[in-house]
Amino acid sequence: MTPPTRAEALALDSADPLGPFVERFVADDPNLCYLDGNSLGRLPVATVARLRQVVEHEWGKGLAGSWPEWIEWPVAVGDRLGASLLGAAPGQTLVADSVTVNLYKLAGAALAAARAADPARRVVVVVADEFPTDRYVLEGLAGGTGGALRTVAADAVAGVDPAAVTAALGPDTALVVLSHVAYRSGALVDMAGVTDAAHRAGALALWDLSHSAGAVPVGLDVAGADLAVGCTYKYLNAGPGAPAFLYVAARHQRRLRSPIQGWFAQRDQFAMGTAFVPVDGVERFAAGTPPVLGLAAVDEGVALLAEAGIDRVRAKAMALTDLLVGLADEWLAPLGFALASPREPSRRGAHITLRHDEAWPVTAALVTAGVVGDFRAPEHLRLGPAPLSTRYVEVWDAADRLRRLVAEGRHRAAVPPAGRVT
Amino acid sequence: MTPPTRAEALALDSADPLGPFVERFVADDPNLCYLDGNSLGRLPVATVARLRQVVEHEWGKGLAGSWPEWIEWPVAVGDRLGASLLGAAPGQTLVADSVTVNLYKLAGAALAAARAADPARRVVVVVADEFPTDRYVLEGLAGGTGGALRTVAADAVAGVDPAAVTAALGPDTALVVLSHVAYRSGALVDMAGVTDAAHRAGALALWDLSHSAGAVPVGLDVAGADLAVGCTYKYLNAGPGAPAFLYVAARHQRRLRSPIQGWFAQRDQFAMGTAFVPVDGVERFAAGTPPVLGLAAVDEGVALLAEAGIDRVRAKAMALTDLLVGLADEWLAPLGFALASPREPSRRGAHITLRHDEAWPVTAALVTAGVVGDFRAPEHLRLGPAPLSTRYVEVWDAADRLRRLVAEGRHRAAVPPAGRVT
Repeated sequence: MTPPTRAEALALDSADPLGPFVERFVADDPNLCYLDGNSLGRLPVATVARLRQVVEHEWGKGLAGSWPEWIEWPVAVGDRLGASLLGAAPGQTLVADSVTVNLYKLAGAALAAARAADPARRVVVVVADEFPTDRYVLEGLAGGTGGALRTVAADAVAGVDPAAVTAALGPDTALVVLSHVAYRSGALVDMAGVTDAAHRAGALALWDLSHSAGAVPVGLDVAGADLAVGCTYKYLNAGPGAPAFLYVAARHQRRLRSPIQGWFAQRDQFAMGTAFVPVDGVERFAAGTPPVLGLAAVDEGVALLAEAGIDRVRAKAMALTDLLVGLADEWLAPLGFALASPREPSRRGAHITLRHDEAWPVTAALVTAGVVGDFRAPEHLRLGPAPLSTRYVEVWDAADRLRRLVAEGRHRAAVPPAGRVT
Repeated sequence: MTPPTRAEALALDSADPLGPFVERFVADDPNLCYLDGNSLGRLPVATVARLRQVVEHEWGKGLAGSWPEWIEWPVAVGDRLGASLLGAAPGQTLVADSVTVNLYKLAGAALAAARAADPARRVVVVVADEFPTDRYVLEGLAGGTGGALRTVAADAVAGVDPAAVTAALGPDTALVVLSHVAYRSGALVDMAGVTDAAHRAGALALWDLSHSAGAVPVGLDVAGADLAVGCTYKYLNAGPGAPAFLYVAARHQRRLRSPIQGWFAQRDQFAMGTAFVPVDGVERFAAGTPPVLGLAAVDEGVALLAEAGIDRVRAKAMALTDLLVGLADEWLAPLGFALASPREPSRRGAHITLRHDEAWPVTAALVTAGVVGDFRAPEHLRLGPAPLSTRYVEVWDAADRLRRLVAEGRHRAAVPPAGRVT
């Protein structure tokens, strides 16, 4: 096909119903093509004011007197997130801790409950290419309890085959842990199908929504999902290291207990009783004092996405990545790039990945050309045009600069040492 | 004794070498007596600018390109905290997660290591009146591993007797967990003595520094402490829910492993290897992505205390609480208040507690008189004049307003329902 011209990309922006949302983010460098929203989302303009309000007024002036309001936020912000983006009825979503810690709490709770019901149920099924922290946490949990991981191979591009997950399930399986959108390829998994297979095997399904929350509609309740965790500093635009979220389906809450028994999970917390008696609701998966600044930022990010509507966000995500895939086919394939994401937009999330032998020097050199993507070892360039904050022309310019840079061999000129891009 | 006059309190402020530091905090209400710095410390003026810098420039403009700097902060800020306030050489202090999660990680690591060396070492010794989240976490950890808690009684005022701790230790003891300064009474424990007793019994000592960091010099290395955790939103002025810290003595780092195996503890993290191989240093006790805004606020709070010098802070803490105790003896004892903190300043931290039959209505009514303290069930009013941000006259005014309020019976006029004051 003939790729669109730059004028055509600009026309897509003019016609974009979400176009005005781009202005709702801080963006002082008009030359920058920021295709790394899947790593760290842009700063919403409203968040600047909200954080000043929280810091300078609520903390600075209200001091400890602000706690009666702040203390409600983990559940209140969780409910708003659940309702607008996760398909979760109230009382099931909590904003707290990091993805790592939340995964530990929920997987630990699920493994303990499974073992208590049937000592033979000790296996966690996980995809071989699952995001590292998920694998590390599960390896530690399984090892600490005499359990085991069972690894399912997945295609590096197409992602995991639900049939392979089903084949890995058995009467020994306690839990399946899976990313809804794969962090590397962007492949989208059929949540309802895999959850159903887990249930038929007597196991629970825990979903990592880090790369899907705010990018893809997530119907946790409808899919019958049991547990979920996810990140807020990517598509939810809550800032570096902002608190993560967790979801526990209401039907499981009373029988699951977090291995980390913290005082924010305690019934009648400020009576400060001697024995731990967790509350009934999703707050029983809280641990320590909630990170108030981060919660405010999550709230603002969620509000922005809720205003845009996740279905429109999804439509734009597909259109942006489609544009990128089309340009990559036309311009980049001849330069040694191969699409390492599903070609069908409905099978992927909001980012795509390109494989290239020199992916690291290309990623590094791109920054000097005003294009930010990110590198994933050993040879992947990941490009995430966050739908709410990215223009079509930004994607066009990024692809154009990328082809020129590689065609001219500029990525070979000054190669920095392989480094960290979170 | 005759209590000082208000003019004498003002004279103490004029002569106070730390007096100018009061101006380094946001304080827009000159009428407010904020004696709750032991719950939520005041906002440093410098933190306002620093957070704007981090949010609006580093995140808003630098975007993911700021990660190479941010990623160093958990250890860098930890080292500055360790050096200036904790008596900890570099490479042993990490800013991360909450006190609850850090306690879980360190106590879990210590229990697992003790069990591996000797399956009979499973007991955690803890004080009966220890801060709730500590007890809950330890109860959960001990229960999950077939261990047990052994509780040591402590005097509600004088705190725990080191001899009672020593008597509770035995060949079955893996770990002693103790607050350096008791959250209720403010009683200060002899860290070196208890640590030594733990070591002689073959156990490790884990210190909760939440009420001592930034208020009392803490000599972790000199005391031979093994492990520690602590809070930053009290005397370190890092804001509501700011990340906590942890300390692991260098000699223990290689043999201890956090039960929560997160990717920020992984060697060569961004290679994203399959198996978890923790780094050698204190970062092996990290878990998820560091909370950047909170880290910046911790850094500012630590810098302010470092500039003041912890010895001068300690001297002022003793003088402020001494003033308060003197006024309480003279004015408040006749109204039914009893000191529930050690009378000897060297035996307590930077807050004092008064017992009173109507402590809850008194605490609540005090707020309407412009005095913020906090209530601890069932009948304690806790007053924490944070040394760096509190004037002597503020303590004088608070005691004066408290005696008038109770003498006039105003606390009985409008009693709100017993509520949460964190």
